[in-house]
Amino acid sequence: MSRRIGAVNLRNRCGVLLLAVAAMLTSTNAVAAPREPLTIQEQGSFAIGGTVVNTPGTYDNNKPTSDGQSFHGDHLYTFYQVPENPKALPIVMLHGAFQSARSWETTSDGREGFQTIFLRRGFPVYLVDQPRRGRAGNSTVATTIEPTPNDQLFFDQFRIGIWPDYFDGVQFDRQPEALNQFFRSVTPNTGPYDAGVISDAMAALFDKTGPGILFTHSQAGGPGWLTAIKSENVKAIVSFEPGSGFVFPEGELPAEMQSAAGPLKAESVAPADFDKLTRIPIVIYYGDNIPTEPTERRGEDNWRVRLAMAKLWVEAINKRGGDARLVHLPEIGIRGNTHFPFSDLNNVEIADQVSKFLSEKKLD
Amino acid sequence: MSRRIGAVNLRNRCGVLLLAVAAMLTSTNAVAAPREPLTIQEQGSFAIGGTVVNTPGTYDNNKPTSDGQSFHGDHLYTFYQVPENPKALPIVMLHGAFQSARSWETTSDGREGFQTIFLRRGFPVYLVDQPRRGRAGNSTVATTIEPTPNDQLFFDQFRIGIWPDYFDGVQFDRQPEALNQFFRSVTPNTGPYDAGVISDAMAALFDKTGPGILFTHSQAGGPGWLTAIKSENVKAIVSFEPGSGFVFPEGELPAEMQSAAGPLKAESVAPADFDKLTRIPIVIYYGDNIPTEPTERRGEDNWRVRLAMAKLWVEAINKRGGDARLVHLPEIGIRGNTHFPFSDLNNVEIADQVSKFLSEKKLD
Repeated sequence: MSRRIGAVNLRNRCGVLLLAVAAMLTSTNAVAAPREPLTIQEQGSFAIGGTVVNTPGTYDNNKPTSDGQSFHGDHLYTFYQVPENPKALPIVMLHGAFQSARSWETTSDGREGFQTIFLRRGFPVYLVDQPRRGRAGNSTVATTIEPTPNDQLFFDQFRIGIWPDYFDGVQFDRQPEALNQFFRSVTPNTGPYDAGVISDAMAALFDKTGPGILFTHSQAGGPGWLTAIKSENVKAIVSFEPGSGFVFPEGELPAEMQSAAGPLKAESVAPADFDKLTRIPIVIYYGDNIPTEPTERRGEDNWRVRLAMAKLWVEAINKRGGDARLVHLPEIGIRGNTHFPFSDLNNVEIADQVSKFLSEKKLD
Repeated sequence: MSRRIGAVNLRNRCGVLLLAVAAMLTSTNAVAAPREPLTIQEQGSFAIGGTVVNTPGTYDNNKPTSDGQSFHGDHLYTFYQVPENPKALPIVMLHGAFQSARSWETTSDGREGFQTIFLRRGFPVYLVDQPRRGRAGNSTVATTIEPTPNDQLFFDQFRIGIWPDYFDGVQFDRQPEALNQFFRSVTPNTGPYDAGVISDAMAALFDKTGPGILFTHSQAGGPGWLTAIKSENVKAIVSFEPGSGFVFPEGELPAEMQSAAGPLKAESVAPADFDKLTRIPIVIYYGDNIPTEPTERRGEDNWRVRLAMAKLWVEAINKRGGDARLVHLPEIGIRGNTHFPFSDLNNVEIADQVSKFLSEKKLD
């Protein structure tokens, strides 16, 4: 983009040009070194999974009503890229709540996201819009979408700061355009959220890709565990700030946890299903500014219980012989991360952590 | 994909493998020659345009309600790729009704779409999800989404055939999976359709990209003309089967046209605005199986009036000194095209037509 933006600016007057130069001096976007070109062996998109709903009756070509017509819905959509000389296992990236595959593309401040970073590192990358979100908008269940004003809540809940103040040292660019891009990455559900529908479609995707690695973010944590239960092709999970849907073996559920953002409940699965999660390496990352003691600050307290639940979850997996690890980034000296570590200012450092994990587990 | 699918199949038994081989022998996808890798200088995504709605009141970080919160909506989303040694003018592709940027990616039968074809031909390519669609789902106006069964209507209306029969010689792959992919490319509006909102966001995109070429499809025809009126950076328009929103100078509107699919009305713009469309080269393509005489067959008759209106529109542009051309593909010997010529079986031939146009107009 910088070349094109430059071309636009050159047509303007000096004042605008000077402003642009000033912006470049403070923007991590514009000062980024030129990158090597990407060599893409193949790219494309498709839908997978989902269902077909048939309306009884006879279709009349000339006077069509619902009678005798069908509806395809509840599939996921994926855009994939395969680099030249790809590594054996592709990475499938599943976004969180209020988000789409866009989560993994360009960061809010205009740098390369995990899609392109991991392509450069040799992995085929599949970005998913989950069923009933983004380009996979056809839902078999109706919904109403309201323009709900949530910007300030998201600023708090995604731990950029305490609105209107940024956290000291937060890994989020403070230029207004970065926040504008962040708010505009939000996109609504086009049908009721359903972890079963999502994990069914995700398992169908892994049937098609073959063995691969699953990255999940936030709300996708739960459907991610279910996908690995449903598909043996999930060979590892890298989960960023899983937010809900922690599954435990029937009868071994931890107590509900209370927070200023509401209660967090564990979910029950058959012990044999839980055991499937003990057969693959799993790593979970949480960022900074998560309190250890209860607080009235809703945005932060929400993550206190999620981090606590994740710790219990990792213990439960490992107690049954699994290989799960929880990395609370500040504990390894990586500070300032928001709820979106993979698109934060230090996302290359986060990618390096992930690469190290994949290398240790011989997945690269 | 073929390499990966192959790997999956090898893990199965011979019966499945033979089925797969049989499928490959009849699939245009699998028999496609291996392609050269793509060299991408830069890729990424962003939102642009749109508005911010502010709710009065004071935001309470700990007990958030709508009070004092904002909502970012009505922007478009775009994913762009710039090839190495790019041509000067990028191509911006805007999808039609019930579609997203996905229209321009992989075809329903698994071949490269216009996104990748025109990247290979050296153009930077921007794929848009218009405001209130796909990943640009945040709408400032509420809506309800119902799972409306429209598959058979779409089969007819998009001129694949007369359900359940394909047109003889139709440029659409007859394997069930192609139709499955086609139906699953459908995605709903997440707010009321608004050509003004769309063209505002598109003009903002052209402000950012600088001078470029606009490709539109179907419903995007109308917002496309408006975008060129709003932005001098639109240097040419390639419009596939524009479906509505034909703008004429105030007082020079043709009469409403009646069809089995309902009436088609021209729309009025200020003469000075209309004249802006006379300053750029425009080409319009329509496919096959469009009747010349009225018929009860709704799916076809819908296009009879649109093609007729497009002819009047081109005449009006040229009468005022413009440079518009209507290409009815069967008249130049290209037969069997559906409403989606850019993803039909002969889409490389269609791309060649477009390239010839761009070359004639010195836009490449």
